[in-house]
Amino acid sequence: MKNALILSALLAFGPVCFAQQTEKYPLGNYEELTDTKPHDSEEVWNKMKTPTEFSWGITDIRYKKLDVPDVKKTTRLQTKAWKGERINAQAVLWTKNDLEEATITVSELKNGSSVIPASAITTNFVRYVMTDELNKDRKGGCGHRENKAEWDSSVVADVLDIVKIQDIKARTTQPIWLNVWVPSDARAGKYKGTLTVSGKNFQAMNLQFEVNVLNRTLPAPQDWAFHLDLWQNPYSVARYYQVPLWSKEHFDAMRPIMKMLANAGQRAITTSIMHKPWAGQTEDHYDSMVTRIKKIDGTWVYDYAVFDKWVEFMMNEVGIKYLISCYTMIPWALSFDYFDQATNRVQFIEAKPGDAEYADYWGSFLKDFSRHLRAKGWFEKTAISMDERPMEAMREAIKVIKQADPEFKITLAGNYHPEIQSDLYYLSIPYGHKFPEDVKAERERKGQISTVYTCCSEAFPNTFTFSDPAEAPWTALHAIAGGYDGYLRWAVNSWTADPLRDSRFRTWAAGDTYSIYPGPRSSIRFERLVEGIQDCEKVRILRSDLKGSKLDKLNKAVSMFTPEGLSETQKSAAEMVNELNELLNSL
Amino acid sequence: MKNALILSALLAFGPVCFAQQTEKYPLGNYEELTDTKPHDSEEVWNKMKTPTEFSWGITDIRYKKLDVPDVKKTTRLQTKAWKGERINAQAVLWTKNDLEEATITVSELKNGSSVIPASAITTNFVRYVMTDELNKDRKGGCGHRENKAEWDSSVVADVLDIVKIQDIKARTTQPIWLNVWVPSDARAGKYKGTLTVSGKNFQAMNLQFEVNVLNRTLPAPQDWAFHLDLWQNPYSVARYYQVPLWSKEHFDAMRPIMKMLANAGQRAITTSIMHKPWAGQTEDHYDSMVTRIKKIDGTWVYDYAVFDKWVEFMMNEVGIKYLISCYTMIPWALSFDYFDQATNRVQFIEAKPGDAEYADYWGSFLKDFSRHLRAKGWFEKTAISMDERPMEAMREAIKVIKQADPEFKITLAGNYHPEIQSDLYYLSIPYGHKFPEDVKAERERKGQISTVYTCCSEAFPNTFTFSDPAEAPWTALHAIAGGYDGYLRWAVNSWTADPLRDSRFRTWAAGDTYSIYPGPRSSIRFERLVEGIQDCEKVRILRSDLKGSKLDKLNKAVSMFTPEGLSETQKSAAEMVNELNELLNSL
Repeated sequence: MKNALILSALLAFGPVCFAQQTEKYPLGNYEELTDTKPHDSEEVWNKMKTPTEFSWGITDIRYKKLDVPDVKKTTRLQTKAWKGERINAQAVLWTKNDLEEATITVSELKNGSSVIPASAITTNFVRYVMTDELNKDRKGGCGHRENKAEWDSSVVADVLDIVKIQDIKARTTQPIWLNVWVPSDARAGKYKGTLTVSGKNFQAMNLQFEVNVLNRTLPAPQDWAFHLDLWQNPYSVARYYQVPLWSKEHFDAMRPIMKMLANAGQRAITTSIMHKPWAGQTEDHYDSMVTRIKKIDGTWVYDYAVFDKWVEFMMNEVGIKYLISCYTMIPWALSFDYFDQATNRVQFIEAKPGDAEYADYWGSFLKDFSRHLRAKGWFEKTAISMDERPMEAMREAIKVIKQADPEFKITLAGNYHPEIQSDLYYLSIPYGHKFPEDVKAERERKGQISTVYTCCSEAFPNTFTFSDPAEAPWTALHAIAGGYDGYLRWAVNSWTADPLRDSRFRTWAAGDTYSIYPGPRSSIRFERLVEGIQDCEKVRILRSDLKGSKLDKLNKAVSMFTPEGLSETQKSAAEMVNELNELLNSL
Repeated sequence: MKNALILSALLAFGPVCFAQQTEKYPLGNYEELTDTKPHDSEEVWNKMKTPTEFSWGITDIRYKKLDVPDVKKTTRLQTKAWKGERINAQAVLWTKNDLEEATITVSELKNGSSVIPASAITTNFVRYVMTDELNKDRKGGCGHRENKAEWDSSVVADVLDIVKIQDIKARTTQPIWLNVWVPSDARAGKYKGTLTVSGKNFQAMNLQFEVNVLNRTLPAPQDWAFHLDLWQNPYSVARYYQVPLWSKEHFDAMRPIMKMLANAGQRAITTSIMHKPWAGQTEDHYDSMVTRIKKIDGTWVYDYAVFDKWVEFMMNEVGIKYLISCYTMIPWALSFDYFDQATNRVQFIEAKPGDAEYADYWGSFLKDFSRHLRAKGWFEKTAISMDERPMEAMREAIKVIKQADPEFKITLAGNYHPEIQSDLYYLSIPYGHKFPEDVKAERERKGQISTVYTCCSEAFPNTFTFSDPAEAPWTALHAIAGGYDGYLRWAVNSWTADPLRDSRFRTWAAGDTYSIYPGPRSSIRFERLVEGIQDCEKVRILRSDLKGSKLDKLNKAVSMFTPEGLSETQKSAAEMVNELNELLNSL
C-alpha cells in the first residue's frame, strides 16, 4: 500500500517533464516567496517541548507559516460524510528542527471488512502564496493596484501542492490537507484510517481519522442541479506550460485542470468568439476561437477548428457538456478582429451595436455559426454570451442575434434588467441583487437559468487568497438561500505572471483571477467551494425528502446564508457553514 | 479640336474624385516645395525684352525654375521618327509677369492629306520635385540619409504633370514636354503642327514642329525583344490613393500606371509571396499576395485570391504577361509569415535555408503553388525569384524549389555565380559585371534570360531625380552594348511619403525608388528611358537589316555604351545618345 502511494507520489512529478519548463513557470517543486511579516521568534519556537508536533487542525484556518500554530492538539478526527461526498480535513505539523524529505502517506480506511481504498484519498502539503488585502476602504477589491508596495502583502496558506516530498524548515508550520472522496457504493458505517508523515531524519508521526459514512448518497457531480459556471482560460495554460495553443501538449495540460472543474459540477464551456472579449484584462488575454477571414471579394469565411476542438475536448474528454458560452458580441472595447486577406494582417472593425458594420460583422458570422452548430448538434447547448453593457447596446445586439437565428440562446452576466430578462436564457446577476419572485418563477417555468455572481466587488463573501476559507462554501450556500439556480465566477484559472508564488495582480485583490493553480494544484478556496456546492446538493435532496419541522429547520438554516441572515445571526461564515454541515449530516 | 483638348484636360482632373483624397496625397494640382537655392534676381529677370518668351529647348536639360534659361530661341523644331515610335521634345516658357490659367494645346500634324491626330500627342507642364545629391564621395547613392539637412537639396524639373491648367508665376521658367506617338500606320513624310500656350491674361504663343516620319517601323511594345523589368509596387498605390488594397478602386488607380509600364515594354509582373521580401525597405512595404494559414492540426492552407487577381489584372487588363516573378524565398530578414489559426495572429517562422523548418514552410507551399500555377496555365511563365544572398543559402533554396517541383523556373537579381547560373532561368547582374561569353551564348541557346541592373550603386548611369536625363537612354543602350538581353531596376513606383513634391528618401539618393509619379504622371527620366529602349529595338532591327560597313558603323556606335566606351569617346551621355539617335534615323 505504502509503495503504491510512493509510486503515485513519484508520478505526480510527471508534469515536470513538460517541454521547455523553466524556473519562471515551475510545475514541479518551487521556492515560496519570503514572508516579511513579523512572526514568532526563535525563542518562542524553542519553547516547544517536543521538536516536532503533529495534530489535527481545522479547515477554516490558514495557518501561519512562521508562527507556532494555536492548535488544541488532537490525534483523532471524527467526520461524517454522505456516500459519494468529498470531505476535507486539515492537519498541522510544526517543528523547531529541519525535517528532510517529509512525505505523507495514508492507509486505506477500514470498517470491518469494508474498505475505502487509499486511492480515494488525496493528501497535499499546503503551500504559501503571496496575497494582498481589500481596498483601503475595506469595501471590496476592485480597481488598479499596479504599485504592489501600496498594498499590505503577506504569504498565506492556500495552494494544495502536488509535490509529495518536501523539506520542512526549522521553525515553520506545515499544514497538510486531506480529502476523502467516499465511493458512492461504500457501505454506511465508521471507517478508520491513519495519516502518516515520515521522512529521512525524523520518526514517522501518525494521526487517526474516522469517516462516518451516512446512509445518504450524493449524486455524481454531472448529476448535480447546481448551475456552476467558473470561466476557464485555456490561454493561461498554454503560456504557463509553455506549450503551443491547442496542441496535444496543451490539451494534456488542460485535461486534469478541467476535470477538477467537471468534478466540481461545472456546467458551461467558456469560449471566446472574438479577440479580447474583455479587453485583455487578464494576464493572458482570450483570443478568438473562431477563424474569421475577410476575402478580397468582401465575403467572410469562418473556420471552427479551434472552437470545435476545445468544445469536443470539454464535452468528450472532460465531461462538461451542458452549455457552450460564447463571448462576446459586446466587448468592453468595441473593436472586432478578422484576418484580412488583402493586407495579410489581422485587422479590426470599430463598430458599435446599432451600426450597419456591426450588424454585418456579427450577422454574417451568426448565420454561419448557427449552421455550424446545428450541423454539430450543439445548437441547443450554445448561447451567445454578454457581460453587462448599456441597455441600448444589449438591445441592439439581441436584435442582430435574433435576425441571424431567432432560436439562438442568449446569456448575460450583469444587472437584472426587466426590459431584456425574458430574452436571456441564462442570466447571472450580482451578489446582493434579486430576481423579482414572479420573474424567477416564470424563468424557471420556461427553463431559463437564473444565477448569482461575485467578483472583485465583494469584501464578503469572496475567494481572494486572503478571504476566510469558509467564505467559499458560504458563497455557494448563498446561491440557494437567495433562490438562485447556481453561481458564476468570471475566472478560475486566469493565472497571474507567477501564480504559484504570487497571487497578486495588476487589478483587483489577490486571488480574484484564479482558484486552481498550475500543476494542477487545488486550493483551500477551491476545495471549500466544492464543499459548499455539495452542501447545496444535500439541501436540494433533503428538501425533497423531508417534511414538517425537519424541513422547516433546514429551510430556516439555509435562509440565513444571505446578507440579511448574516447580520441576523451575528455568526462568522465558518460558524454558519459548520452548523449547516452538522445539520445536513443529522437530518 | 481645341475644345476636345480642353475636355480631355478637364477629364484629367478625374482622379481628384478618388475617395478620401487629402492634401497629403494630392492627385490634382499641388504646390511645389520652395527652392531655397540662389537664383536669378529680379533685376536679371527684368532685363527680358518681351514679358514672356517661348522657345524650343532640348530634352537633355532640366531647366531651372527660377533662372532665365540659357536657350537659343527657336520657334521651329525638326525631328525624325520611325512609324510606331514615340519621340520627345521640350519647349521652354519663361516670364517676368504672372501668367494666369496657362494651358497647352497642340494641333494635329499634317502632311498634305495625311494626318497624325492630336490624340497621338501628349503635352505636359514639367513640374519641379525636391532632390538631393550623390554620396559625399560621389561614388553612388547608397546608404542611409535620414537627416535631410546633411544633403544638398534643390528642386529639379522631372514630373510631367497631368494638370493641364497652370498659373505661372512671374520670374519663373516653365518647361513643357511634348511627346508624339507616331501611329504605326502613318505614311512616311514630313508632318507639321503647332504647339500653343494660351491663357487668361496673355497673348497665345505658338511653336512650330515637324516630325519627319521615316520609312521604318518600330514594333508595338509587346513585341519588343528587350527584356525590361521594372518592379511594381501595388502597396504604394493603395496608400497614396487612399483606397483599400485589391479593391476595384485600387485596380482603377493602378491601371494607367501599369499601362505606362506595358507601353515601355515591361515583361515581368512583380509579385510578393511573403511578408516584407525586402525587409520593408520601401516607404510602403510589400506584403504577401498569398494567404498562408497554419491550421491547428499543423496542415497548411493556401489561398491565391490576391495573387490571382493581381496577375490576371496585369495579364488581361494591362497586357504584361511574359513572366511572373515571385519574391522571395530568401528575404533579407529570414522571417516567414503565416496566419496562425491557434493564436489568431500573424506569426513568423525564423528559419534559414538548410533548416528543416525552412524546407517545410517553403516545400509545402511550393508544391501547392506548382499545382495552382499549372491549373491556371501559368506555370511556364512563373519564376521563384531571389535577390543576391550568400551562395550556400541560394543553393539550399534552389534545392527546396527543385524538390517541390524540378520544373520551377528560378530567377536572381545579383552577382554572377558560375556555381548556380545554369539553374537560373533569368539572371540579372549588376552594372559593370559581365557574363562570360560562352556562358551567355549557352544561356541564350537554352532560352535563359541574362540582363543587367542598376540601383543606388551607380553614380553614372542612373535615374536619380538629379541624374542627367540622357543617362536613362544611355542605361538602356548599355544593356545591348554589353550583350545583355535587357535591363532590370528594382523600383518604378515605390513612392516616397510625398512623391510629387519630394523625391528624397530615408535611404539612397533621391528618385532611386520611382520614376513614375502618382496620377499617374510620367517623368523626364521615364520618357527618356523609353526612348533608350526604343533605340535598342531600332538597333536590333537594323542589325538584322544592315550589312557591311553600315552594320559595322552601327555596331561600333553601339559598342561605345559601356564604361570603356564612355572613357574612350570622352563624350557626355547626352552627346552619345543624340549621335546614336541620329545614326539610327539615317541608316
